[in-house]
Amino acid sequence: MVPGYKLKLNSYDLGVDIELADAVARLRFEHPEVRAVIITSGLDRVFCAGANIQMLATSTHGFKVNFCKYTNETRLAMEDASAHSGQHYMAACNGVTAGGGYELALACEEIYLVDDGNSTVSLPEVPLLGVLPGTGGLTRVVDKRKVRRDLADVFSTLAEGIKGKRAVEWRLVDGVFPRGRFAKAVRERALALAAGEPPREGPGILLDTLSPEATADSVRYRHVELKLDHENRTAELIVDGPQGAQPDTPHAILRAGADFWPLRAFREIDDALLRLRFHYDTIGLVELKTRGDLAAVRRIDTTLYQLREDWLVNEILLLMARTLRRLDLTARSLFAVVEEGSCFAGSLLEIALAADRIYMLRDAAGRVRVASSPMNGGLLPMTHGLSRLQVRFMAEPQCAEEIAGASEPFDTDAAERAGLATAAVDAIDWEDELRVAIEERVSLSPDALTGMEANLRFAGAENPDSKIFSRLSAWQNWIFSRPNATGERGALTVYGKPERPQFDWRRT
Amino acid sequence: MVPGYKLKLNSYDLGVDIELADAVARLRFEHPEVRAVIITSGLDRVFCAGANIQMLATSTHGFKVNFCKYTNETRLAMEDASAHSGQHYMAACNGVTAGGGYELALACEEIYLVDDGNSTVSLPEVPLLGVLPGTGGLTRVVDKRKVRRDLADVFSTLAEGIKGKRAVEWRLVDGVFPRGRFAKAVRERALALAAGEPPREGPGILLDTLSPEATADSVRYRHVELKLDHENRTAELIVDGPQGAQPDTPHAILRAGADFWPLRAFREIDDALLRLRFHYDTIGLVELKTRGDLAAVRRIDTTLYQLREDWLVNEILLLMARTLRRLDLTARSLFAVVEEGSCFAGSLLEIALAADRIYMLRDAAGRVRVASSPMNGGLLPMTHGLSRLQVRFMAEPQCAEEIAGASEPFDTDAAERAGLATAAVDAIDWEDELRVAIEERVSLSPDALTGMEANLRFAGAENPDSKIFSRLSAWQNWIFSRPNATGERGALTVYGKPERPQFDWRRT
Repeated sequence: MVPGYKLKLNSYDLGVDIELADAVARLRFEHPEVRAVIITSGLDRVFCAGANIQMLATSTHGFKVNFCKYTNETRLAMEDASAHSGQHYMAACNGVTAGGGYELALACEEIYLVDDGNSTVSLPEVPLLGVLPGTGGLTRVVDKRKVRRDLADVFSTLAEGIKGKRAVEWRLVDGVFPRGRFAKAVRERALALAAGEPPREGPGILLDTLSPEATADSVRYRHVELKLDHENRTAELIVDGPQGAQPDTPHAILRAGADFWPLRAFREIDDALLRLRFHYDTIGLVELKTRGDLAAVRRIDTTLYQLREDWLVNEILLLMARTLRRLDLTARSLFAVVEEGSCFAGSLLEIALAADRIYMLRDAAGRVRVASSPMNGGLLPMTHGLSRLQVRFMAEPQCAEEIAGASEPFDTDAAERAGLATAAVDAIDWEDELRVAIEERVSLSPDALTGMEANLRFAGAENPDSKIFSRLSAWQNWIFSRPNATGERGALTVYGKPERPQFDWRRT
Repeated sequence: MVPGYKLKLNSYDLGVDIELADAVARLRFEHPEVRAVIITSGLDRVFCAGANIQMLATSTHGFKVNFCKYTNETRLAMEDASAHSGQHYMAACNGVTAGGGYELALACEEIYLVDDGNSTVSLPEVPLLGVLPGTGGLTRVVDKRKVRRDLADVFSTLAEGIKGKRAVEWRLVDGVFPRGRFAKAVRERALALAAGEPPREGPGILLDTLSPEATADSVRYRHVELKLDHENRTAELIVDGPQGAQPDTPHAILRAGADFWPLRAFREIDDALLRLRFHYDTIGLVELKTRGDLAAVRRIDTTLYQLREDWLVNEILLLMARTLRRLDLTARSLFAVVEEGSCFAGSLLEIALAADRIYMLRDAAGRVRVASSPMNGGLLPMTHGLSRLQVRFMAEPQCAEEIAGASEPFDTDAAERAGLATAAVDAIDWEDELRVAIEERVSLSPDALTGMEANLRFAGAENPDSKIFSRLSAWQNWIFSRPNATGERGALTVYGKPERPQFDWRRT
């Protein structure tokens, strides 16, 4: 049994972020026996912000914002593993842990720092770069670690950072150890965390590579297809439901491994969303579609619900939830399209509930239907902890419960009455109405839509996780595009050059 | 007895906003007998967004953002009156209630609309202007009125708005009445709301004009002074504590009226903050100072606490709380400076607790002290409902309680131990350390500081009120400064002109 696992990171840029996200996912699925993970480095510099700054200074606005979002989703996945997978992340900070590196440490359950007079933690973005350590940095400092706000203020403006006992007193790290004792002390703490969890057998299952077939206007996976219409700036994301007999015991699911439909399909959705964000930034609207059998989705959901205590099923559910949160946080207009052959049931109904609007065809035969499953009762929460049904029915909480508990599917009339359809459209008007709605939508200001959608999607009290994305990426979106950061003489532009930034001093 | 009061607004711009804020304040203090307020119009157009758009299109970025913040503070003051003063605001919407007008209606407890086939409510900012109805509009729609998110999405992209029964079904208004019955129906509803409150005698007290003496580098009030150092981009806000005998019965306080120290001093602070925001936008840092007797502040706080059930004392406390929230939300670096002669006790201690940092002089004699009072226990909450001590001591909630309940003042050493001082500085270093800290602070990117401070000041769960300022003004700050809104061919720039806006379609 391997109780601990060391993750080595030598530099810090998107490449490393992708590797990190991949490693965090593999640890969960491939190494369930691992109960504690120490993030450390091969060099004496654990997390160096150098690559990060270079990336921020030279990349486009869109890439910067997408990068911030992606890194935070990865960090939330680590926190999710600490909280729900019994895999505890620890940061062993040795040398300079700055900027993105300290943000990564902040995502760990515990942070330890070498006490050698040189090793420091810092968030130098404000003093050095004129931008925010906003991708979770500031929020995690005051909301997660509960650093006193005035000390957080001093810390966030001190380029050289904080070291030693003061870092402990200010709650920036959980402990410091002299260099000679550091590795042993951190390892002991990791073993203690691991010992607090019941042992699990490994290995788990192998996550194979998705290897979609990508052309200029489509990305095709096994169960998912992303179709791109570059000219009209729209895309279709089509998810195929499960087909044929499905495993329904822990043993059979383990044997199916990465081929098990929910795991494969949601990994593919996740990948498609990331490609959409990073590769296709002018696509303004995504039609969300499903194809398959409502009952088959409900059956597989029921299996997952009943077996949710099994470690692998638990991991699959957590992955589905993270993927759906990635969808909620995707800054494109999302219209769910429910038509004949759709299978928006349970976990796939969540995709429709994540959409800004749900268009549902009213067919004479009543074959177009949606359905709930035990998945809609809160197992796949949004970033701020509420279910999508709870957010949808803020005014009538009992509607959320009734729909989640409904035993029968809803045809279009029933779905409209229940508040599940934004528009129920007769067959004769269907194509025109949908086309006009989409054309209107993609004609609007993309910035205004980004702000509007982010505001309307997350009704309810905010928690630290949701604050990271709402408040912080909003501020960062602003600050990144201001001349004070990215103008010709902005702080980010001139970083590392002899000249000093020139600021427009007006504040609002 | 006058149970209702009609507030007539014919157009909508900052001038009207100032009049509205003034009217809301006067209603509370001068007309305690009024229990219901109907906001309506002299024309058939209750709230017309015309002036507003003109203002948004032609004003500077800073003015736009400050305007949004100010209007929201006014709307929150109306909601505060509905919730805590027993003065219920209702909107009677007749004609086109668009944009800022509907936002004003959203701030009312109830909204009624004429059902005549023409009268509508709308938030046309996204489709017409490429900006957000972000100054409370979107948040109030989904969080306060709990409009279903997909219907809110349709509503917020529909320039022509929603009318009649559908407006009721979508929860956008509370009722519609035909034109012939409208005035009577609204009046009946207002009388019913008024009848739900115990009757109060009027009139109250007169709020006189503050009439400060303003020069190029100072604004001087009776108890408050704002000193401006334009060259160094700093200011001092100095508050004088109460002097001499103070009224300590409801009758005596009523007789003192607008001259009663807490009312006058906090109205002056409020006015100074607004001048700072609107007139002096390059001032980056404000030193917050007090002068007077700690014990005198504590005595007056104790009086207010003991008499808090009295209507006038209640209003004074609510005004103090709103002023302190205005301070929290002021986008300038705030350093509290505690030195000999300071009187940061109780309600004035809240000013220090609102600061980003608290510098405290360590004098040999131990004369420099701060003190708590019953005011620090939650009577003056921040926007998100927590007390400033609770936010400061998120990690150790008992510290907040101990300080709020402390019977003795804290000298500098005690304040440092208790976590009340960011830095306790010996007399010999005092001037240099403060000067260097201020110089460093004002050298940093003002945009990054605005984002950083807004993030660090509000640890804890967000509620709708705080979401308005954090999420929305952040998004709006971004969207207002993007070419898609305010560039040469931006939607806001070309509004009303024959050409169509040109957008950069990339979304992040």
